[in-house]
Amino acid sequence: MDVALKILVVEPDAARAQDIIDALKDGGWGNVFIVSDISSLAPKLTEIDPDIVLIDIAHPDRDTLEHIGTISHAKARPVAMFVDRSDADLTQAAITAGLSAYVVDGLQKNRIKPVLETAIARFKMIEQMRRELDAAKQALTDRKTIDRAKGLLMNARNINEEDAYSLLRKTAMDQGRKVIDVAHALVTAADLLG
Amino acid sequence: MDVALKILVVEPDAARAQDIIDALKDGGWGNVFIVSDISSLAPKLTEIDPDIVLIDIAHPDRDTLEHIGTISHAKARPVAMFVDRSDADLTQAAITAGLSAYVVDGLQKNRIKPVLETAIARFKMIEQMRRELDAAKQALTDRKTIDRAKGLLMNARNINEEDAYSLLRKTAMDQGRKVIDVAHALVTAADLLG
Repeated sequence: MDVALKILVVEPDAARAQDIIDALKDGGWGNVFIVSDISSLAPKLTEIDPDIVLIDIAHPDRDTLEHIGTISHAKARPVAMFVDRSDADLTQAAITAGLSAYVVDGLQKNRIKPVLETAIARFKMIEQMRRELDAAKQALTDRKTIDRAKGLLMNARNINEEDAYSLLRKTAMDQGRKVIDVAHALVTAADLLG
Repeated sequence: MDVALKILVVEPDAARAQDIIDALKDGGWGNVFIVSDISSLAPKLTEIDPDIVLIDIAHPDRDTLEHIGTISHAKARPVAMFVDRSDADLTQAAITAGLSAYVVDGLQKNRIKPVLETAIARFKMIEQMRRELDAAKQALTDRKTIDRAKGLLMNARNINEEDAYSLLRKTAMDQGRKVIDVAHALVTAADLLG
C-alpha cells in the first residue's frame, strides 16, 4: 500500500529535493512529485491529488502557515512541514493551521520517513476526532429539528408527542425517506409559510 | 511563564540527561526533574505533577506506549517521546496512546525546545477538540434527559410539552438548581419507583 502513496514535496533546493526523493525511495515510497515553488502548491494539489504533502521552507511566517492550512483543508490530508527555525508562537500557528507534523531543524534523510509516518498517524487520529465531533454536533442538530417538527405537528393537529413522532415516522416510511429529512421539510415549510 | 513550567524527564543515560537539562536551561526552562527509570514514571507524575513530560527511550514496545498513554491520561498533559527507531505500526500506537510528540532518532540538543513547543501546541489543540467533543456529547445527553423528564411530567399531569418544560424551569428556579439537574432527579426517581 505504501508504495502507491502519492507524495507531493515542496522543496526549492534541487539538491535537497534529490535527497528527499532518495530517502523516500529507500523507504519504499517511490511515487514522489517535486514542486520547487510554494506558490504552485494550490494548483499542484488539485492536479496531483497527493496522499501526503511534505513542505520544506526555511522561515515560514504566520500568513504562509495559515495559507497552507487553508489550501490543505480543502481536501483533508496529512501535511508535514520542515522549517529551519521557529518560535513558540509560530509553532502554535502551525499546529492550529492543521499541520500534521511541524519539524524544526530536522530535515535529515533518515528522519523523513518516520516523520511522515507520524504525520499520517496524527492525521488519522485528528480525522477520527473530527468525525466524532461532527457526528455529535449533527445528532444534536437533528434532534432539535425533529423536536421542532414534532411541536409543529402537535400544535397543528392537536396530538400528543408520541403521536406526532409516529406520524413523522410513518410519513418517512411511506416516502422511503429518513425521519430527519421529513422533519427538515416540515420545519422549512413552516418557516416559509410563516 | 515558560520559566515556571515543570518538566519531568525520563532519561536512563546520565550524560544525555545532562544534555537535556542544559538544552532546557539554555531555552529558559529551568524547572527540570530527571527520572532515570521509566518504571518510576507513575509515582513521579503524582509527586511532581509536571506540566510536560519528556521521555527518551531507545526501543519502546507497544505495551510501553500504551502504559505511558494510560498513566499520562490520568491527568492530561503534553508528553513528548524520543525513540531511537520505530516503524509505522509502533508510530500509530504512540499517536493513538495520546503522545503529543513522537520523535524518531531526533534527540539533538538544539531540537529539544522546538519539539516541546510543538508538543505543547499539539496538546492544546487536541484538548480543545476533546472539550468540544465532550460538550457536544453532553448537550445531546442533557437534551435526552430533559426530553424524558418532560415526557414523564406530560404523562403524570396530563399537560402539554410547553407546560411540562415551564414546570421543570420553575422548579429549577425555585430550588436554585439547573433545569438539567431537576430533570436528572426526576428521571432517576421515575426509574427507582418503576
